[in-house]
Parts: sequence; C-alpha cells; structure tokens
Amino acid sequence: MIILGLDPGLASMGFGVISYDGVKERMLDFGVLHTYPDMALPKRLVSLFEGINDLIERYQPDDIALEELFFNNNAKTAIVVGEARGVALTAAALYTTNVFEYTPLQIKQAVTGYGRADKIQIQQMVKLLLSLDKLPKPDDAADALAVAICHAHSIRMREQFRVR
Amino acid sequence: MIILGLDPGLASMGFGVISYDGVKERMLDFGVLHTYPDMALPKRLVSLFEGINDLIERYQPDDIALEELFFNNNAKTAIVVGEARGVALTAAALYTTNVFEYTPLQIKQAVTGYGRADKIQIQQMVKLLLSLDKLPKPDDAADALAVAICHAHSIRMREQFRVR
Repeated sequence: MIILGLDPGLASMGFGVISYDGVKERMLDFGVLHTYPDMALPKRLVSLFEGINDLIERYQPDDIALEELFFNNNAKTAIVVGEARGVALTAAALYTTNVFEYTPLQIKQAVTGYGRADKIQIQQMVKLLLSLDKLPKPDDAADALAVAICHAHSIRMREQFRVR
Repeated sequence: MIILGLDPGLASMGFGVISYDGVKERMLDFGVLHTYPDMALPKRLVSLFEGINDLIERYQPDDIALEELFFNNNAKTAIVVGEARGVALTAAALYTTNVFEYTPLQIKQAVTGYGRADKIQIQQMVKLLLSLDKLPKPDDAADALAVAICHAHSIRMREQFRVR
C-alpha cells in the first residue's frame, strides 16, 4: 500500500510518500510544497491545494495521514496553520475516506518508541527505518515521512491483534 | 454585480449574497452551512467546500468577501476556525481572483459608521440597508451579509475617489 504523510503549514507543507508491504516501509518521495509571502493568502492556499492534488494523482495513495495539532500558544500562528490544515484535509478527503490524524506524541512513540524524542532523534529513526543515505531534510519533509511511518505502524499493530 | 459574503466557521459557515448596482445593495440570499460534530473533520471540511461551491455555481458572484480574523484568545478554537477559513478561501480562489478580506473593525465601520457597534446594532443596519422585513438570523448569516455590504461600500468609496 501507498501512504501519503502531510505536515501542514502555509509557507512550507511537508510531504512524505512511502510504500508499506505489511513488514517494511520504503520511501518513494519526500519534500515540501512552498508558498511565499508575496502571494495573496487565497492564492497560497490554492497553490497548496493543487500541489497536494498533484501528489495524490502521481502516487494514488491508499491512505493519507496528517499530524493533528492540539495546541499552539500563538493564536495568530494557529489560525494560519489551521488554514493550511483545512486545505490539506479537504484535498485529502475529496480523494479518499482513508484520512487519518496522529498527535505529535503518537508519532514520536511510533517512530522512536519514546514520547520525548527530539527532532534529530526522529530524523535519525526515519533515516534508519527507510534505509536513507542521509537525514531527510528539510524538517517539514522529515515530519511528513514520520507521520506516514506512524500510520504504517498503527496498521501493523491493528493486524497483530486482529482475531483470525 | 453580485457579492458573496462568508463568515467562516466549522459548525456554522454564514453566507450572504447581495447584488450591488453602484447605489444600493439588495439581498439575494443568506443562511448558514451547517456541519455536525458526529462527522469526521475531513468530511465536515469537504461538506463546507461543496456547500460554498454550490453557492458559487448558483449565484456566480463577481466578488467574494470574508471576515479576516486577527486574533483569538483560544488557540484550539483558532485552529478550527482557521481550518474552515482555509477551505472557504480555497473554494473562493479556485473560482475567482476577486477575493477580499475585511477586519471586524472595517466591517463595523462600513455598516454602522461606528467601530464599537454591537451585534444587534450591526443586524439592525443590515436589515435597514437591505430593506429586510426582520433582523437577519442566525448571527453568522447576518455577519456574512455585513461583510458583503462592507465590500460594496468599499467599492463605492474607491469609485468616488477615482480620477476620471
């Protein structure tokens, strides 16, 4: 199966595409969709919407996973991140009902087995799990790969406890 | 010209459609798009996206105006409102480049001439300006009509000062 992970942001929307065969995850693509402050907000959001649609068309993911944001101290930042998340969720849900959200804690635990792991530790585990040559960059792309891996792990967990 | 005003929210997205002939605004439609908490978030956002698209298709607005949110004390609420705004802005900008945002202060001043007007005063002015039989309800629909009127007034202002 193919999993598209998204780490929503307005200036930089991380994406990570992995395949998962029930045993191992493999990296297919990762990167960021950029938008720039010299563009009007509606155009930036449309650019993200179309960028996500392009990724969906190219990789035809079975499932789409996003990081769920519970809290942000800065309400202005929260609105902007919310706008980008709203676009990502809409693009995802127009394509499939298989849309999943994971908290930062769930992602850290799934990827590193440890809820207090820092960014570098997460990137090192992403590199290891996907057999990458080097740490995935930039951070938003690494976070998107991490949420995709988290979703693959949660599928594995569910299968292990399924009554057969 | 036709103006679609939107007051974004996840549970209730207010809309107001007015025509404006350069002198007077007329009400064409108003109401709210509802989504319910028993639906998953991605489905709620898609339902708003499709509801806005339906309004756009039905009324073919020349311009679309939204309330701009600068501040919200509660970061969790800010993210949710942001998600709904992201969807509204994307639906609007996929249709037209004529997307406009006004602050609550601009809307109050445009509709009532007074920056500290309360909700009831705004609704009374909306009723008066659009020659409605009674106060527009619910509040989100009244707010959406107010932002549409604000946009019409800003067009009038611009025309008055245009060099001919």
